[in-house]
Amino acid sequence: MASGTGSSREMDTQTAIMEATYRALCEHGYADLTIDTINAEFEKSKSLLYYHYDDKDEILLNLLGYLLDQFTVEEAVDLDDDPDIQLRTFVEWLLPWTIDDNERELQIALLELRSQALSDEAYSEQFTRADALLKGTIVDLIEEGIEEEIFRAVNADRAAEHVLSTINGAMVRRHTAEDESAVRTTRKGLEEYIESYLIPDDN
Amino acid sequence: MASGTGSSREMDTQTAIMEATYRALCEHGYADLTIDTINAEFEKSKSLLYYHYDDKDEILLNLLGYLLDQFTVEEAVDLDDDPDIQLRTFVEWLLPWTIDDNERELQIALLELRSQALSDEAYSEQFTRADALLKGTIVDLIEEGIEEEIFRAVNADRAAEHVLSTINGAMVRRHTAEDESAVRTTRKGLEEYIESYLIPDDN
Repeated sequence: MASGTGSSREMDTQTAIMEATYRALCEHGYADLTIDTINAEFEKSKSLLYYHYDDKDEILLNLLGYLLDQFTVEEAVDLDDDPDIQLRTFVEWLLPWTIDDNERELQIALLELRSQALSDEAYSEQFTRADALLKGTIVDLIEEGIEEEIFRAVNADRAAEHVLSTINGAMVRRHTAEDESAVRTTRKGLEEYIESYLIPDDN
Repeated sequence: MASGTGSSREMDTQTAIMEATYRALCEHGYADLTIDTINAEFEKSKSLLYYHYDDKDEILLNLLGYLLDQFTVEEAVDLDDDPDIQLRTFVEWLLPWTIDDNERELQIALLELRSQALSDEAYSEQFTRADALLKGTIVDLIEEGIEEEIFRAVNADRAAEHVLSTINGAMVRRHTAEDESAVRTTRKGLEEYIESYLIPDDN
């Protein structure tokens, strides 16, 4: 019992650290994030933080893993919908027409972490996993649509890579160039791609 | 004459500084770039560098402007080709199947600069200009193709945004995730997009 309780308390601490890091990252961005700014969001003792992690990158890499572990497709789409609706909803979830300040801060923070992957293999590993997870979800939706004859018998892998790259590019452009219309126009282009490339003419 | 010569010498100095910065950026990346590392690539006196610029960001923003000023579509495509060939060549130019070490270093350096635009408006302005330049080039190619009836009468603006976002996303994924096949598959998807969406069935 003692070890069970200890392990559950350990989990609570880890979760509290991850949530504090998430808030601190959204607030300060990658460059200004320090163990101290994370600690300011963390309600437990600072020594606990130092006990678990050596530096901010170790915490942030764990945060990426934590966010990926939490991801489920049900969070983004309604599994009772047809696969074409699910695919559109998933695109909308990844690339919404409009975003509020909190979503903007989170997306910018994630892109700042992604840019760390340009020079840091540990970050690159996490984003490889993130891309594989998102791509796998899109492949599943397309394959389900093909099976139900809602989609043409396209190469699901290729279509999924295309959709994911397009979403990634639009997300980067949304936050690094002053042209919000680029995102909306890309979204319209993606809708059109689903309509003209995936859905047979007679549907 | 004296002022003419002075102005031309001034231009030579500016160009030499830009070329030194370009080499230093490819070698060291954004994070490790300093006025000193730029100066190590610069053959003239260090005081000249400090005379012209206050800090590395001022130099790098000028470098982005310099690279954009140098861009011409003729550099990337053969204007004698049909618009569909030109479009494919332009996609290949932006997103080659394979890249050598120098191209990799340059692309990583440019993505590092792009990530500065997440928090710095001066960088964001330069990448807004870069996107507009590339998008305008793609719009021109698509409109020319529509005029010559090689392409369908699609919405050129929307198709260009789609292509540019897809290329941007694939470029980011190439350098931040360990999955080189994502780029090749996205390229194949883009070829297919041009084939199925832009080119009429009877061509």
